[in-house]
Amino acid sequence: MTNQISAFSTPDLNDLPEDIRELILTVQEKSGFVPNVFLALARRPDEFRAFVAYHDALMERDSGLTKAEREMIVVATSSLNQCQYCVVAHGAILRIRAKNPLIADQIVANYRKADITERQRAMLDFAVKVAQSANEVSETDFKLLHTQGFSDDDIWDITSITGLFGFSNRMANVMSLRPNDEFYSLGR
Amino acid sequence: MTNQISAFSTPDLNDLPEDIRELILTVQEKSGFVPNVFLALARRPDEFRAFVAYHDALMERDSGLTKAEREMIVVATSSLNQCQYCVVAHGAILRIRAKNPLIADQIVANYRKADITERQRAMLDFAVKVAQSANEVSETDFKLLHTQGFSDDDIWDITSITGLFGFSNRMANVMSLRPNDEFYSLGR
Amino acid sequence: MTNQISAFSTPDLNDLPEDIRELILTVQEKSGFVPNVFLALARRPDEFRAFVAYHDALMERDSGLTKAEREMIVVATSSLNQCQYCVVAHGAILRIRAKNPLIADQIVANYRKADITERQRAMLDFAVKVAQSANEVSETDFKLLHTQGFSDDDIWDITSITGLFGFSNRMANVMSLRPNDEFYSLGR
Amino acid sequence: MTNQISAFSTPDLNDLPEDIRELILTVQEKSGFVPNVFLALARRPDEFRAFVAYHDALMERDSGLTKAEREMIVVATSSLNQCQYCVVAHGAILRIRAKNPLIADQIVANYRKADITERQRAMLDFAVKVAQSANEVSETDFKLLHTQGFSDDDIWDITSITGLFGFSNRMANVMSLRPNDEFYSLGR
Amino acid sequence: MTNQISAFSTPDLNDLPEDIRELILTVQEKSGFVPNVFLALARRPDEFRAFVAYHDALMERDSGLTKAEREMIVVATSSLNQCQYCVVAHGAILRIRAKNPLIADQIVANYRKADITERQRAMLDFAVKVAQSANEVSETDFKLLHTQGFSDDDIWDITSITGLFGFSNRMANVMSLRPNDEFYSLGR
Amino acid sequence: MTNQISAFSTPDLNDLPEDIRELILTVQEKSGFVPNVFLALARRPDEFRAFVAYHDALMERDSGLTKAEREMIVVATSSLNQCQYCVVAHGAILRIRAKNPLIADQIVANYRKADITERQRAMLDFAVKVAQSANEVSETDFKLLHTQGFSDDDIWDITSITGLFGFSNRMANVMSLRPNDEFYSLGR
Repeated sequence: MTNQISAFSTPDLNDLPEDIRELILTVQEKSGFVPNVFLALARRPDEFRAFVAYHDALMERDSGLTKAEREMIVVATSSLNQCQYCVVAHGAILRIRAKNPLIADQIVANYRKADITERQRAMLDFAVKVAQSANEVSETDFKLLHTQGFSDDDIWDITSITGLFGFSNRMANVMSLRPNDEFYSLGR
Repeated sequence: MTNQISAFSTPDLNDLPEDIRELILTVQEKSGFVPNVFLALARRPDEFRAFVAYHDALMERDSGLTKAEREMIVVATSSLNQCQYCVVAHGAILRIRAKNPLIADQIVANYRKADITERQRAMLDFAVKVAQSANEVSETDFKLLHTQGFSDDDIWDITSITGLFGFSNRMANVMSLRPNDEFYSLGR
Repeated sequence: MTNQISAFSTPDLNDLPEDIRELILTVQEKSGFVPNVFLALARRPDEFRAFVAYHDALMERDSGLTKAEREMIVVATSSLNQCQYCVVAHGAILRIRAKNPLIADQIVANYRKADITERQRAMLDFAVKVAQSANEVSETDFKLLHTQGFSDDDIWDITSITGLFGFSNRMANVMSLRPNDEFYSLGR
Repeated sequence: MTNQISAFSTPDLNDLPEDIRELILTVQEKSGFVPNVFLALARRPDEFRAFVAYHDALMERDSGLTKAEREMIVVATSSLNQCQYCVVAHGAILRIRAKNPLIADQIVANYRKADITERQRAMLDFAVKVAQSANEVSETDFKLLHTQGFSDDDIWDITSITGLFGFSNRMANVMSLRPNDEFYSLGR
Repeated sequence: MTNQISAFSTPDLNDLPEDIRELILTVQEKSGFVPNVFLALARRPDEFRAFVAYHDALMERDSGLTKAEREMIVVATSSLNQCQYCVVAHGAILRIRAKNPLIADQIVANYRKADITERQRAMLDFAVKVAQSANEVSETDFKLLHTQGFSDDDIWDITSITGLFGFSNRMANVMSLRPNDEFYSLGR
Repeated sequence: MTNQISAFSTPDLNDLPEDIRELILTVQEKSGFVPNVFLALARRPDEFRAFVAYHDALMERDSGLTKAEREMIVVATSSLNQCQYCVVAHGAILRIRAKNPLIADQIVANYRKADITERQRAMLDFAVKVAQSANEVSETDFKLLHTQGFSDDDIWDITSITGLFGFSNRMANVMSLRPNDEFYSLGR
C-alpha cells in the first residue's frame, strides 16, 4: 500500500482555478496543512465548488444543532459506512468542537455507549436510520424527535448532514482517500 | 395520506430569491409543470443552489457515459434505496433520454434482467456496490471496469452520481416527497 | 440479452395438452396476447395445472380483500424479491383492478409512501414480514391485523398470496422470464 | 404454548369433502397417523387440492434427482427459513428416503458439513441461492450446475422444490403449525 | 467428505499431558465414547484447560437457570451460528437434561415455536440478541428480563453462555468438527 | 450516562481472592492503572481465571503471528462487533506493539485501507469471515492462507483470537464496560 492520496490522480495546486487555489491556501494557513480531500476533489473544479457550498450551507449555518453535534452525526454515520478518511478527519474536528479528547473514539466504536445526552442519543439514532433505512422513516420518527426538542429544521439538518456525508463516504471509499497524518493527534 | 408535497412546509414561489424563482419558472416552461423536488428544496435556498450546481456538474458534463446511462444509474440505485420520488421522476427522464418506454420499469424491478449491454451491466453492478458496500470497493473493481472500456473519469462519474442520488434518496424519503402525477406517463 | 421468453426452452402451443392449449387461447382472446408465464410454465403440464388451480383458488375466491388489494400484495412483495416479470405484469393488473394509473409504480418504489389506506398499509406491512421473516410472525401480528378489521381468513389470504407469489418470483427469476411488452402500458 | 395444531381453526375430518377425507385416511393408514399439515390445509379444500397436486407433480415425478435428494433440498431450505414443521417432518422423510439416520440433522445444522457428494453440495448451494437471492441467479449458475451433470430439467426441479417449500415454510410459520410427535423418531 | 474428526490434525491420546488424558478417559467411561471436541481441542493443551475451566464455571455453577435452560441457550444460538457439532452434541445433552425427546429439534428449527415457558422465551430472545447484535443491548433489555424474574447474575449467565459457545461455534466451523455418531440418538 | 464501569456491580479490590488481587495489582504497577475489564470480570473469580488463562495461552504463545498482528485481529473484529471497550483498549495496545500511532485508528475505520501488508490483509479478511460467517469457511480459505505463508497453527490462532474476543465483545457490550480514560492517548 503506497502513501498516495487517492486512487485517482490529483491536480497540482498551481494548475487549479484561482478561486480553488486561494481557498486551499487559506485552509492551509489556518490548519497548518492541506487536508487531502481538497486536493482529491479539486480534480473536478465544478464539483469541488458545489461540495464546498453544500458543506458550508449545512455545517456553518445557524442551527438548533451545535457544531459539535453536527460533527457527531458525521462521525457516527461515517463509522457505519467504514469511511477511513471521514472517521479520522471529522473525529479530529469533533474533538476540537466538543473540547473533548475522548468523544470521537467513543462514537466511532459504538455511539450507544458514548458520553452523550439523551437528546444527542435520539439525534444519532435517527441519523443512523437515515443512513441505513431512510425508506422506513415515518411520522413516528418525527414525533420522537419533536419530543426531544428538535424542530423540523433540525430534522432537516440531521437528514442532510447524514446524506451529504454518506455521499462523501462513498466517494472517499472508492478513492481510497488517505487521511493526513496530522488528523490523528489533533484535539487529543 | 394527503396529497401534500413534502413532510416539511414548502415556500411560496413568490417568496423565493429571484435566481431560484427564475430557475423554477424556466423549468416549468420547458416541462409544463414544476417538479416537486424544486419547491421542496427551495425551503433552503443555499442548499438548493448547491444541489443544482452539483447535479448539473455531473449530469450535464461531457462524459464517457451517455445521458441515458447516467439516468440508468440513478434509477437502479434509487430503486434499491426505495426512493419513490427519484424512481418515478428519473424513470420518466430515462425513458425520454433512452427513447425506450420499457427500460425504466425493467431497471426498477431488476436491472440484471433489463435490455442493457454487457458494459451497462458492469456499470450498474458497480453503482450498486457503491450504493451498498463502498467500503469493499478495491482495485479489482477498477480493473473490471477498465476492461469494459470505462476510464477513471467514468468511474468517478458512476461513483458521484450514485453518491449524489443516494443523498437525494435519503432526503426524499425523510420528506415523503411526492412525485408529480405528470411523471408517471412521460415517455411511454 | 436476447428477447427470448425464458432461460428454459418453451413448448409450441400446438404440442400442448388440449386443456392447457384451450386455457391459453381463452386468455389470448380476452387479453389480446399470451402472457409469457403461460408458455413458460406449460413446459410442465402438471405443474401448470396446479399453479393455475392454486392461483385461481386465492385470487378469484370471495375474500375480505378486494381483488385490487390482492394485487397490491403481489406487487409489493414481488418488488422486494426483484421479480421483473411479476412486477411488470401484476403492476398492470393492479392498475386495472384499482382503476388507478399511479398506484402500481408507487407501491413498486416504496409502498410506505403510496396512496393507500391505513388498513392497506397494515396489510402490506404484514405481507412484507411474511415474505422476509415469516419465522418471526407471532400472535402480536394477528392482533394488530384484527384491530384493522382483518379476519383470520383474511390473514390466511395475505399469507398465501405472499407465499404463492414468492414461489413464482423465484421461478421467474431463475427463468429470466421476460414480461410481454404489452404489460408496460396497460391501465395507464 | 398449547398443543393445538395451528393458529387457524382446523376442520373436523368428517366435515371434509369426500376426496380430501379419503386422501387423508389413506395417508393415515400408510403412516399410522395424520400429519398435521393435512388437517391444517384442509380448511381450504381448493388450496389443499392444488398444493397436493403441485407437491406430487414435483416430488413423485421421474427426475434426475433422487427422492432423497429432493428431500435434502426441502430440509436445507426449510432450515434456513426456520420452519419447524417442515424441518421436523421432512427430516423424517429424508432419513427414510436416504436410509441414513444422521443425514437430516447434519443438513439442518449446516449442509456444508454434511455427508453428501460434491454434486449434492452444488445442488444445495443453488437451492439456498434460490431461497435467499433468486434475483441474482444468472447463466453462471446454470453452467456450474451443468458441469456437475445437472440438466435444465434438474435445475427446474431444484428451483420449483425450493419455491414450493418456501411457500409452505411461510404458511407453516404463520400457522405455527405443530409437527406431530411421531416425526421426531422416524427413521432413526 | 471423509470421516475425519477435524480439519486440523488431532493428537494421539497417549501423547497428551497426563491431566488431559485422565479427563478424557473419565469422560469416555461416563459417556461410553470420547466426544470429538476433546481430541480436537487437545491439540493445544493450555487452551483445552482454559476452555474446560470456563465451560465448567458456567455450566456447572449454581445458577438461577436450570441446566436444561443453559443447554437451551447453547442449542438456540449454535443453530443460528450453523454449528453442526454444537447443535448435534448439545441437542443430545438438552434432551437428557430436560428429559424431553422433542425439545432440542424444536429449538434448532425455530425456538419461537418450541414447547417452552414465556420466561424461557424471553431468555432465548435475549441470547439471540447477544449472539447477533450485542452492540444494541441496553437497559431496556435488562428491565424486560427482570420482569421475567431473572437477576443480574442470570443475565450474566445468559450472556456468558451465549458468548462462550459463540466462540466454540466459530472454532468448530473452521475445524469442520465432526459430531460423533453416538450423539444423534442420545436421549430420544 | 454515568461514569460507572459496568452495568453489573463490581467487587472491591480488597474482597477479591488473593491470586486475583495480586494479578490486578501487578497489572496496575506495570500500566499505571487498573484496566476496567479486570474489575468487571472479577465479579466471577472462576471465570476471571479461565479468561486470563485463555487470553494468555493465545496472546503470549510463540506463534507465526507477531503480537502486533494478533492485536490487529482483535481491533478489526472488535470494531465490526462495535465493542467500545475492546476497540479503545486494544487500539492502545496495538499502537504500542506496532510502534505505530496511526495503525489502530486506520483498522478501526476500515482495515481494507490500512497501512498493512498483503499477508496481513489476508489474515484480517479471514478473521472477519470467522467473526461474521464462520459457517461458510471451507478448504478454499485454508488454501488461500497457506499461499500467504500461514500454517495450520496460524489459522488456528487467527480463529481462536477472533472467537475469544468475539466472546469478550459480547460481554463488554452487555456490561456497557467503560474504557479507562488512560487508553485513549496511549501509544500516540
